Amino acid sequence: MPATLQTTSHARTQKLIVQKFGGSSMGTIERIQNVARRAVKTAAEGHQVVVVVSAMQGETDRLLKLASGVSTRPADREIDVLLATGEQVSIALLALAICELGYKARSFLGHQVEIRTDSTHGSARIRSIKADPVHECLRKGEIVVIAGFQGVDQHGNITTLGRGGSDLSAVAMAAALKADSCEIYSDVDGIYTTDPNVYNKARKIPRIGSEEMLELASLGAKVLQTRSVEFALKYNVTLHCRSSFSDGEGSWVVPEMSGLEDAEMKGLEGAVVTAVSCDKNTAKLTVVGIPDTPGAAARLFAPMADAGINIDVIIQNPPQEGRTDVTFTVPRNVADRAVQLLESLQPALGFHSFSVDKSLAKVSVVGAGMVSQPGVAQRTFAALGDAGISILLISTSEIKISCVVEDRFADLAVRVLHDKFELEKT
Amino acid sequence: MPATLQTTSHARTQKLIVQKFGGSSMGTIERIQNVARRAVKTAAEGHQVVVVVSAMQGETDRLLKLASGVSTRPADREIDVLLATGEQVSIALLALAICELGYKARSFLGHQVEIRTDSTHGSARIRSIKADPVHECLRKGEIVVIAGFQGVDQHGNITTLGRGGSDLSAVAMAAALKADSCEIYSDVDGIYTTDPNVYNKARKIPRIGSEEMLELASLGAKVLQTRSVEFALKYNVTLHCRSSFSDGEGSWVVPEMSGLEDAEMKGLEGAVVTAVSCDKNTAKLTVVGIPDTPGAAARLFAPMADAGINIDVIIQNPPQEGRTDVTFTVPRNVADRAVQLLESLQPALGFHSFSVDKSLAKVSVVGAGMVSQPGVAQRTFAALGDAGISILLISTSEIKISCVVEDRFADLAVRVLHDKFELEKT
Repeated sequence: MPATLQTTSHARTQKLIVQKFGGSSMGTIERIQNVARRAVKTAAEGHQVVVVVSAMQGETDRLLKLASGVSTRPADREIDVLLATGEQVSIALLALAICELGYKARSFLGHQVEIRTDSTHGSARIRSIKADPVHECLRKGEIVVIAGFQGVDQHGNITTLGRGGSDLSAVAMAAALKADSCEIYSDVDGIYTTDPNVYNKARKIPRIGSEEMLELASLGAKVLQTRSVEFALKYNVTLHCRSSFSDGEGSWVVPEMSGLEDAEMKGLEGAVVTAVSCDKNTAKLTVVGIPDTPGAAARLFAPMADAGINIDVIIQNPPQEGRTDVTFTVPRNVADRAVQLLESLQPALGFHSFSVDKSLAKVSVVGAGMVSQPGVAQRTFAALGDAGISILLISTSEIKISCVVEDRFADLAVRVLHDKFELEKT
Repeated sequence: MPATLQTTSHARTQKLIVQKFGGSSMGTIERIQNVARRAVKTAAEGHQVVVVVSAMQGETDRLLKLASGVSTRPADREIDVLLATGEQVSIALLALAICELGYKARSFLGHQVEIRTDSTHGSARIRSIKADPVHECLRKGEIVVIAGFQGVDQHGNITTLGRGGSDLSAVAMAAALKADSCEIYSDVDGIYTTDPNVYNKARKIPRIGSEEMLELASLGAKVLQTRSVEFALKYNVTLHCRSSFSDGEGSWVVPEMSGLEDAEMKGLEGAVVTAVSCDKNTAKLTVVGIPDTPGAAARLFAPMADAGINIDVIIQNPPQEGRTDVTFTVPRNVADRAVQLLESLQPALGFHSFSVDKSLAKVSVVGAGMVSQPGVAQRTFAALGDAGISILLISTSEIKISCVVEDRFADLAVRVLHDKFELEKT
């Protein structure tokens, strides 16, 4: 075969793959060597490889403990300087481990690839990435190792991206590099129709749309962070969620998959529901007898937003005698703060009373196909009713139906819905 | 007093002080808090304070151990990325500890103050420093905390400065900032007339010229690294060697002190010798019967230099019958390498034989005053002779006399010379 043809053939199959490994995949020397082998295997198949890594498991806690030893109210800027060392250690060790296997590797810190962010220390947002130095290394045949979780603001200060930041770094890097896919490695081998710990009939989903995944992530499935899926959807990045500890295919999260394509893939007669999720971090507050004046809702919820309390489902009853009741849910771990806030707001808002219920769960069915298939809501309610589970609140969107139930019924609700929509079947 | 006068008076007494704390001063949370108190105390006295710190004691070893777990022949570039995290942790913790005391502090990494170096990873040389961002913070009343030991090359790669690098960072920073002084904190409280562990009559030297200190440092006194003293001398930086654990004055190392000024300070009739040092890391090699042709010395010593073997004292005997003997000293820990090299050179150089003696020490008397005072050499030799100590080699400069002796006599030689020049007297 002539050399030119070979080149063409190689260029056609070579992909640019971003691989992200979290703290547990980087937890020990042996695991770092395992990550190195994975990266090298992908490179040996002829692909360009960029690896994004988190700090070694336990390192962030160790650093925060040191900080708490010297400071009772640590400055965010200096905590970011401190925490960013965790990923810096990881990239150096991984680059060394890859070199040890006879491949070329080069590490980059956040500021070196210019993962430019705003200045919100501890939860900075990515503004831009300079892809050129990475492309240059890839062209030279180097495996590029990038520190996740960290960036740099316009003044050169080190920033960190907050919870799930390394996933976000990887997805953003994949978008900036126009990578063919972004592989997210963790200790689970994909995305399931529901939590396999709750229901042993749970089945791995081979392929899911980004929008459905976004619902699942925000509803409490922990494989991917909501922010990363949003980013992947917005910038058209294909994700592949895989296990660090096995070679099997994981689950693909595909941005371009439209509702129609989805339906086709599943067969037009097939399932419209993709997964059942459950969020047990749910509390419900009911405010009784709010004067029904214009702007009453804003006066209630604006202080909540200012206090960083995320409101989820909101139900307002029809007003009676100029007063109304409002029920809403918040994450259970901020319920006490919400209660304190309501107490302080009572004089100004003039409501009669309020109540709180912290032992609740939100069970949701998610599926891009459901928008074109009537009856999903009715079947959901029927399944729960048949099992004797009362629905306390309902919230719907085009691709999901959420029901708030008592948390003692949460696992049962997941199982009956999984059965109802036959999710164990491919 | 009018406000303008107050300002003038304040401006007159305000100094810019660089303080350097090594790994043992930063070894624990408590010690970091102690460093914070020192910096704050200096700031509270109205001064501008820049603190340069090393990694916490033990951290560098911990990181190198991780690296050796993944790599048998680690790449210098990645080792620098790894090791630089040590100082990064230190600056964040110290900045937090200073803030905890109610003062403003801001940390800077090597690349953030642009400690620009060449690209020699592991032993980079400083080329320039950008002082402006530091001055800006100081003007805002912030205490500036800078990571020692690290820099950045022209391509943005992280570099480290090698052994004693944090001292060098501090002195270079003091030069760039035109600081009034650079305080070097360690676990000893100053520079002594000789090692107090060797002779209990050793006395702390309140003030010493940089050139004398340079001799002392290169002769084996371990308080300051040779490179830092060279830098201080070249860029006119006044050093103050102090204890981290006491408030007393230490020893001042003053660049502008001329021989005359020195003699005046000590009194013209006073001591001409400042200190006695001892370097036990000494080995002597004698090459017998080298053909006395032009370039013979170069053919002997050029391969030594290429192999990184530092030659110290060199003595060449007058040639007899066209052949000569050459004796020289090297650090004891490279003597075996020098021996291997001589064996490989023997066929080409055509010498008869060589011998090596590894149990030697070099004892030196140092003093800027000695250049104007005859008889120091004679008194040195007499003192050693009276004590029954044979001198094997002699080397002199304007401000020092070094004698190589058997190492079993080294401590005795230090004591008799200390007595002879009455160094216990102020």
